[in-house]
Amino acid sequence: DASLPIKCIVNGDRQRPISCLQKNDDVFVPFALVERYFEISGKVETDKKSGNSEKVFNWQHSYAKLSLPKLPYEPDGIFMSFDNYNVEVRDRVKCISAMEGVPLSSQWTTGGGHFYPIQVAQFGLSHYSKNISEEAPRKTVIANFQQRGSWAVPAVESDEQRSFVWNFTLPESVSGPDVVLDEFPDSGDPYIIFSVKFRTHGSVTLQLEVQDKKQITYELIYTCSNESIWAEGNRIFYGIGADCTNWISLVRDIYVDLVKGLTLGIKKINKKDKVRPNITRIRIIRMVLHGQGHLDKVVTQTTAHSELFYVAADWLVRHQVRQTGGWPISVKRKLGASELQPGWFSAMAQGQAMSTLTRAYRKSGSAAYLEAAVRALDLFGKSAAEGGITAVFLDKYVWYEEYPTKPPSFVLNGFIYALLGLYDVSLTATGEDQKRAHNLFADGVASLKALLPLFDTGSGSTYDLRHFTLKSLPNIARWDYHATHVTQLLVMNSIAPDEMFQSFAQRWSEYMSGKRAPHN
Amino acid sequence: DASLPIKCIVNGDRQRPISCLQKNDDVFVPFALVERYFEISGKVETDKKSGNSEKVFNWQHSYAKLSLPKLPYEPDGIFMSFDNYNVEVRDRVKCISAMEGVPLSSQWTTGGGHFYPIQVAQFGLSHYSKNISEEAPRKTVIANFQQRGSWAVPAVESDEQRSFVWNFTLPESVSGPDVVLDEFPDSGDPYIIFSVKFRTHGSVTLQLEVQDKKQITYELIYTCSNESIWAEGNRIFYGIGADCTNWISLVRDIYVDLVKGLTLGIKKINKKDKVRPNITRIRIIRMVLHGQGHLDKVVTQTTAHSELFYVAADWLVRHQVRQTGGWPISVKRKLGASELQPGWFSAMAQGQAMSTLTRAYRKSGSAAYLEAAVRALDLFGKSAAEGGITAVFLDKYVWYEEYPTKPPSFVLNGFIYALLGLYDVSLTATGEDQKRAHNLFADGVASLKALLPLFDTGSGSTYDLRHFTLKSLPNIARWDYHATHVTQLLVMNSIAPDEMFQSFAQRWSEYMSGKRAPHN
Ligand SMILES: [Ca+2]
Ligand SMILES: [Ca+2]
Repeated sequence: DASLPIKCIVNGDRQRPISCLQKNDDVFVPFALVERYFEISGKVETDKKSGNSEKVFNWQHSYAKLSLPKLPYEPDGIFMSFDNYNVEVRDRVKCISAMEGVPLSSQWTTGGGHFYPIQVAQFGLSHYSKNISEEAPRKTVIANFQQRGSWAVPAVESDEQRSFVWNFTLPESVSGPDVVLDEFPDSGDPYIIFSVKFRTHGSVTLQLEVQDKKQITYELIYTCSNESIWAEGNRIFYGIGADCTNWISLVRDIYVDLVKGLTLGIKKINKKDKVRPNITRIRIIRMVLHGQGHLDKVVTQTTAHSELFYVAADWLVRHQVRQTGGWPISVKRKLGASELQPGWFSAMAQGQAMSTLTRAYRKSGSAAYLEAAVRALDLFGKSAAEGGITAVFLDKYVWYEEYPTKPPSFVLNGFIYALLGLYDVSLTATGEDQKRAHNLFADGVASLKALLPLFDTGSGSTYDLRHFTLKSLPNIARWDYHATHVTQLLVMNSIAPDEMFQSFAQRWSEYMSGKRAPHN
Repeated sequence: DASLPIKCIVNGDRQRPISCLQKNDDVFVPFALVERYFEISGKVETDKKSGNSEKVFNWQHSYAKLSLPKLPYEPDGIFMSFDNYNVEVRDRVKCISAMEGVPLSSQWTTGGGHFYPIQVAQFGLSHYSKNISEEAPRKTVIANFQQRGSWAVPAVESDEQRSFVWNFTLPESVSGPDVVLDEFPDSGDPYIIFSVKFRTHGSVTLQLEVQDKKQITYELIYTCSNESIWAEGNRIFYGIGADCTNWISLVRDIYVDLVKGLTLGIKKINKKDKVRPNITRIRIIRMVLHGQGHLDKVVTQTTAHSELFYVAADWLVRHQVRQTGGWPISVKRKLGASELQPGWFSAMAQGQAMSTLTRAYRKSGSAAYLEAAVRALDLFGKSAAEGGITAVFLDKYVWYEEYPTKPPSFVLNGFIYALLGLYDVSLTATGEDQKRAHNLFADGVASLKALLPLFDTGSGSTYDLRHFTLKSLPNIARWDYHATHVTQLLVMNSIAPDEMFQSFAQRWSEYMSGKRAPHN
């Protein structure tokens, strides 16, 4: 009954035989071979569900988990399953800019980073969704400066802030004397919100006590500079703009601000290398001010989803180019033989921005958000060849291009994100705007129904149709993109019900556990 | 160092854990699991190449073997790799009709079978190709009846046969007295060729001595009947037509005639059940005649490729419908939701017939063959909707349909067979005919280049594009069809050279040993 070694010859490769085992009539092959050959994964784990500490081997076809969307999809509801999405911790986010309040992307660039409108919108939509799914934040007011004389330092009335504010006058140098706010309770709240303006220059320093393996003190220094982020020893600096003489309201996640500083310059964080700090506890000890200026309302919060959502929506309003209604992307993007030049537009950026802006309008009632969302429709009337974002599949089916390459790339996930943005506008705008959005959405749904089968490999999905336009090999979607496809199809079935969407979603989800389309 | 059992949980299915082995840090999984999960195959075999009798485990990704075509492809050369193809032994061939001389198909019908023009043409092309690749047959003249009086029975001169022939007069009953020809040498030749005509009725019986596990005597009886084949005990009957008063020339493979009789009524021959007789040796003992009639030139041969090729080519000329230039297919054919009604045409049948007929013309010089090949072009001008064979992919790319379904099915292998037929005519016909064939070929090549990527799954190929037209799941080509695709692409690269054909053929052949397109 013992197992005996037997040589395995794989597809006739006698040069590299594999050591297998034979036990009675059964041959056992090393999982390591199956793993690299079929690109699946597996590992020995304690079987948590068995109740005892038995070791089992867990064979996993897909490393990605399916994230089921909240259905029915509603234009003011959770966006897909973005309540589970955390944009800021992604490696490709260099930091959350203290100037703009939104993520600064390091993707596709070696320079100082760039604001990627898709990432900004997703940052907004994830916080919007968490604001629905999570409980309301606990807020702790550290200092409100509600009236003159309530603090040891002078308070003055501010017209812009419509509030009494703290008036401080100190040397600008961080090594000079300072003024301290040190009434922070030991709450562990990761968010701090405050408003500040300087006469010329200055900084706000947060001294942190961080429990990693040992206890270390770090400083987060928000200072008047156009540099986004830099670090000196245990000090991590965030620029709030070289001109810091206007009120700026900061909404900071101190955990994220710390981690981005600690991992600065590390290109790709290898999970196995444990470079990512394993912080178990973090607290603000004190806030230290330098320079001359005003400070108002310092609050710590368990979360700040609503605030960050509006930060993102406001960024989109501020950075939309009025003439085109687009958010130009400022980095080069290579896709195969094609290279998009700085200033390109993305249908996915337009769509994700529309989903963000319509939600901001629905929640706030502020017309500027809806106006921006409607302006975003304009680019859908312009082909990629004309600097727009649309392509047409064999002169028949319009496609909204995540990457407006020549020839077209027909990326699936970006197209569906664009459809969701159009859907949101079609249910939010009125009159001609509503009609325009609706027609663009309906045309896109027809294209999706026609072309979706071309993305089906019978055991997964392709990311795009570049194999068709370039006559090359298919670009197989890795499992996390494939899982996104499934989530998106479930949302599509919610807003444009069709048995086809349901059955593709079902089959594609089954591909994730190894099911395959039959052969003839 | 011993292996220990460990439970494998596959994709979270705790209800059906798999028994695996662990040896040191390596986990070994049963190949039986890998086999059914990924649809590959493998078995323990004696390693013939190692020189000793070591047992090894052979892991085979694809059960099919790639059959490399003879290149360059030439319109009078071996057809693809059909020199390795044996049509008549296929299970779906009920028998070789003694009336028509060509295969009778049992596919898609429960009735008496039907003549499937594709099968007839492939029968012709395989024998044509073997006639090139194999050595010339050894022929043994058993009886030639070259002059009056050279035999014990009366010989007479026959105008139709332009020869002296044997004149026999006997009871029609096979149990009555008979006349015997028994000068067959023990050569093992499987082919016998002879000509016969009867005054009213009669039969020619071949008595066979067959070595299976034991030695058995069988009789093959060619008799005046419209029934194709039937068996009574050790007697297997083939009808040569109820009206058998004209000269008929029979070219028979006695091995095939015997096996088809022995497996008669067995739907699907399971290789493991060993129903297929394991004949090691077969010889004709004697030829027995009944009835009144004439017999001429009895010859046995090692092969009869040239004869059978012309039998097929002549069948195609005889059965082409002049008005359409087509070979109507007389059985219903269901494909998904579509049902082709008896009388449908196939672009593959047209193409394979053209490849057969042009070769017959090139070898014989007989104009009737070329005329039939040119007439076969007519249907390429007619859409499936009009009862023809062409479809158009999104109003752009013409496709020659193996199955002219509504909506179109875009079967790949049948399309390429059609292209090869068009190519053969384009290099064989002249004037306007040549131009028509050339243009149809060129249009088809353009379509193939445009649409080929849509058949690529990244780990195999699809059989058709029905998933596109029906919005359904892809119809994955099983490995033997996939191997045919590779062979066809190599041929295409020979006649319409394009780097694309070369690289697809290369990649698709690598899929057969487990290579996969990368994911993003
Ligand atoms: Ca105040
Ligand atoms: Ca004669």
